[in-house]
Amino acid sequence: MANSDWKSVVQEKRLQRERAIDEVKAILGPELLANPPVNDTDDIETLASKIAGGDLTSEEVTKACIARAIKAHEKTNCLTEVLFFQAINDAKRLDEYMSKHGKPIGPLHGVPMTLKDQFNVKGYDTTLGYAGRALKPASADSVLVAMLRKLGAVIIAKTNLPQSIMWCETENPVWGLTTNPMNPKYTPGGSTGGESALLYMEGSLMGWGTDIGGSIRIPAHMMGLYGLKPSSSRLPYYGVPVSTEGQEHVPSSIGPLARTLSSITKVMHDVITSEPWTQDSRCAPIPWRSSIYDSTLAKPLTIGLLLDDGVVRPHPAILRVVRQAASLLKAAGHEIVEWSSSLHPECVEVMDMFYTVDGGEDIRRDVAAGGEPFIPHVERLVNKGTAVSVYDYWQLNRRKVALQQAYLEKWNGTVSAATGRQVDAVLMPVMPHPAVPHEACRWVGYTKVWNFLDYTALVLPGGKVEAGDCAVAWEYEARNVMDEWNAKVWRENKVDMADMGLPVGIQIVGRKLEEEKVLAVGKVVDDLLAVQRESK
Amino acid sequence: MANSDWKSVVQEKRLQRERAIDEVKAILGPELLANPPVNDTDDIETLASKIAGGDLTSEEVTKACIARAIKAHEKTNCLTEVLFFQAINDAKRLDEYMSKHGKPIGPLHGVPMTLKDQFNVKGYDTTLGYAGRALKPASADSVLVAMLRKLGAVIIAKTNLPQSIMWCETENPVWGLTTNPMNPKYTPGGSTGGESALLYMEGSLMGWGTDIGGSIRIPAHMMGLYGLKPSSSRLPYYGVPVSTEGQEHVPSSIGPLARTLSSITKVMHDVITSEPWTQDSRCAPIPWRSSIYDSTLAKPLTIGLLLDDGVVRPHPAILRVVRQAASLLKAAGHEIVEWSSSLHPECVEVMDMFYTVDGGEDIRRDVAAGGEPFIPHVERLVNKGTAVSVYDYWQLNRRKVALQQAYLEKWNGTVSAATGRQVDAVLMPVMPHPAVPHEACRWVGYTKVWNFLDYTALVLPGGKVEAGDCAVAWEYEARNVMDEWNAKVWRENKVDMADMGLPVGIQIVGRKLEEEKVLAVGKVVDDLLAVQRESK
Repeated sequence: MANSDWKSVVQEKRLQRERAIDEVKAILGPELLANPPVNDTDDIETLASKIAGGDLTSEEVTKACIARAIKAHEKTNCLTEVLFFQAINDAKRLDEYMSKHGKPIGPLHGVPMTLKDQFNVKGYDTTLGYAGRALKPASADSVLVAMLRKLGAVIIAKTNLPQSIMWCETENPVWGLTTNPMNPKYTPGGSTGGESALLYMEGSLMGWGTDIGGSIRIPAHMMGLYGLKPSSSRLPYYGVPVSTEGQEHVPSSIGPLARTLSSITKVMHDVITSEPWTQDSRCAPIPWRSSIYDSTLAKPLTIGLLLDDGVVRPHPAILRVVRQAASLLKAAGHEIVEWSSSLHPECVEVMDMFYTVDGGEDIRRDVAAGGEPFIPHVERLVNKGTAVSVYDYWQLNRRKVALQQAYLEKWNGTVSAATGRQVDAVLMPVMPHPAVPHEACRWVGYTKVWNFLDYTALVLPGGKVEAGDCAVAWEYEARNVMDEWNAKVWRENKVDMADMGLPVGIQIVGRKLEEEKVLAVGKVVDDLLAVQRESK
Repeated sequence: MANSDWKSVVQEKRLQRERAIDEVKAILGPELLANPPVNDTDDIETLASKIAGGDLTSEEVTKACIARAIKAHEKTNCLTEVLFFQAINDAKRLDEYMSKHGKPIGPLHGVPMTLKDQFNVKGYDTTLGYAGRALKPASADSVLVAMLRKLGAVIIAKTNLPQSIMWCETENPVWGLTTNPMNPKYTPGGSTGGESALLYMEGSLMGWGTDIGGSIRIPAHMMGLYGLKPSSSRLPYYGVPVSTEGQEHVPSSIGPLARTLSSITKVMHDVITSEPWTQDSRCAPIPWRSSIYDSTLAKPLTIGLLLDDGVVRPHPAILRVVRQAASLLKAAGHEIVEWSSSLHPECVEVMDMFYTVDGGEDIRRDVAAGGEPFIPHVERLVNKGTAVSVYDYWQLNRRKVALQQAYLEKWNGTVSAATGRQVDAVLMPVMPHPAVPHEACRWVGYTKVWNFLDYTALVLPGGKVEAGDCAVAWEYEARNVMDEWNAKVWRENKVDMADMGLPVGIQIVGRKLEEEKVLAVGKVVDDLLAVQRESK
């Protein structure tokens, strides 16, 4: 592809998108579009049982969801590949199945879902935000997509992500910038930022993202959503192209975002019960462990509390929300143990070296293939380091393994003085700040440390920035440029952040492949927060 | 270390070994040494229950085993680090524990075990056959060793391996050549060849090895032993130095060798029940799954039969033994399905590229650190390819992942025409030949393909080379130089091989992390072979 062609590729892709939306607008009609029906439920379990019980048809659910998705897209530019027409036909087929067989096709029958533009869907592009990957439709569904369809889900669209995926905001030259539905000057986070904007506006019941440094958790945090980053081998990655593909030493995970925790737990259960390890060679053969989920719900928990990673101090609103969750846990009879930030700075330092071991060649080639410009963050990333030898790469990996082992020993060694129990999960911030103006994200150390360790991490909405946070005394000598920058972001934006009531997430972290445990701890916290919200 | 020093290092290490043996010879006394008591049992379960029941003391078991180990070493040069003195003291402490508490310290109480000279043992070297790593004792036990000790095992010695580990025979400049106890001109296999020679001569109840291309299975096959290569994340590798450390794309596994299958099954059960994932960050949190083991034993099996990998044709004796196992299975009501060799040549080809991505730098550095010469095979290996870039390394890894996925699909797609069932395990040769004269090993494609796929593979003794095999017509046009070489090995050595009655193993392979299933299928086959042996 000649370099001058990238703009025509962009034009063509955006035209495709426009046509696909217009085509379905005609089907939906002006009334539905102007006033999309209110969302029946945020919860997949509830929705699936309504459809299964005949209270709703898959077609009406899908059409209403599409109408809201169009509104979301017009406001935030969140969509990339538009599958609306196919989705309505899929929904009709599901309804036919129901009337013929008197039962749903699977546990997700009729549930509309969306995908970060990274999951292969047969017949559609997977651009990763690169012009050079456009107009090359995938020849097969990714393993996850095939499983979701088999379970009955309806895929309605794919959503925007940053060029190269390696950035916690959402912009690329092909599809443009995705904005925060609460304020167009703000980012909805990234890299799964198309999903967070769309889910916030109820244009989907579940968004599937990927996370190699926080890309599911950061947008969930910024938009007040639930997001799970499982350990990398728990869900099937096959058929999901990714930047620096073939690099498996710091693995990317796929995971869901949704507006309720039970949606996430249900879908994790359903997908894992479909035995992904029989379909994807990289999945671990670990069935859904109800016993772990149930026993975690039933016992007094020991929770590690980490407020500050030792590099960048979180904003007052973040600290308040995380502390409040800890207080609720304590009041409910759970134990809180201080969790040290030791090893965090070193894990982040080694992880940063991994991002640049190829000297940026992988991303550079993808950008060169299309000829489009770099977005500023990605340009900084590819120019950050020079390529190392394979031998030195292995030495870096040895440091990684040693740090992973040290963290395991740290976990084993952190026990409650009162009970001698080890910590069940760590409670901590997701980021040192809530959603920020575009191009203001810098520090993702609170999330990416868990990719480095391949641990399980859940984000859930913990609260909002409040006016009172602005009055908190928060002056100190900056530790470093990142810390200084983060303080400045607060000083300059705190009033707006409080006015908007920006969401603040909390992060709950378990060890490798402890998804059931983390989801159960999440439910304990989420239920306590719900009771508190209702009592206000 | 100056290059001229390597010989003095070797001298020092061999002197250490001699002294450690002599020290214990004095304790054991000439009578025990001249006539070591016969082995009470080959089986760990039986031995542990005899000790637990007070029929034997740990001290007498350990001393007898050491006496046999000294004999084995004097015949084959199989030992490296000698822990005899410490082992006798450990055994005495165990006996004291028993008399004090009236019960064993753990399920492996008093069972003598040995370790390939790759497992760190506090206070002893881990040379990997490199002079440059000598005289640098480990500061801590490896995770596995610590677990074994906690379970009650007595570590009596470490055993020989080839320089760099990357070879299926056993020789290095530090410790010299390990020979086959049946014939000193023959290899006992490698890289866990010290163990196979020692176990054959009853100088240990269990040997722990590592396997990145067949290094547990090949010596087991050549010496008529049982050997298991689990998937890499099942057992704890931490504290086990390895060549090309940091390279995790084709992972090495640790695993046991023994003279009975029940020994292996018991120890796998005991170690996994100790929850290695709480001690080693790379282990998968998968408990011992008795239900899989039991249900596999109880059902009619569907077994894939692979006789020829499409590259090197096995010798007539190998084919006869594997076919015979298949016939026994069929006669017992199990179903045999042909297993195609498709993908095998390509997996081996891609795997060979992985061996040389660093241009041999890792091994070259280790050899240069000591200054000793290369053994011929290792010299060929390090000069085989030039280093590639990290980016190209990732592309190679993408080919690997694609092949792993293709193999998974092949497995899913190979079903019994009669029942529609998928294959439970594949039955196949371990090597295209039995033990061979030193430096005659070439083709390890039958084993290393399963490292590439990270599948579970068990070797068990299937039979022996017999006089009748020599008469089999076995003339054909060679496919390639490897195939030609293998035919030549047979032509030139078959009479000797039959005279010695060299052992022939069979390999039973399951998918990733299917250790329980593979051990159960192994038991079905092993029991059938035992009945047949008894009926003869």
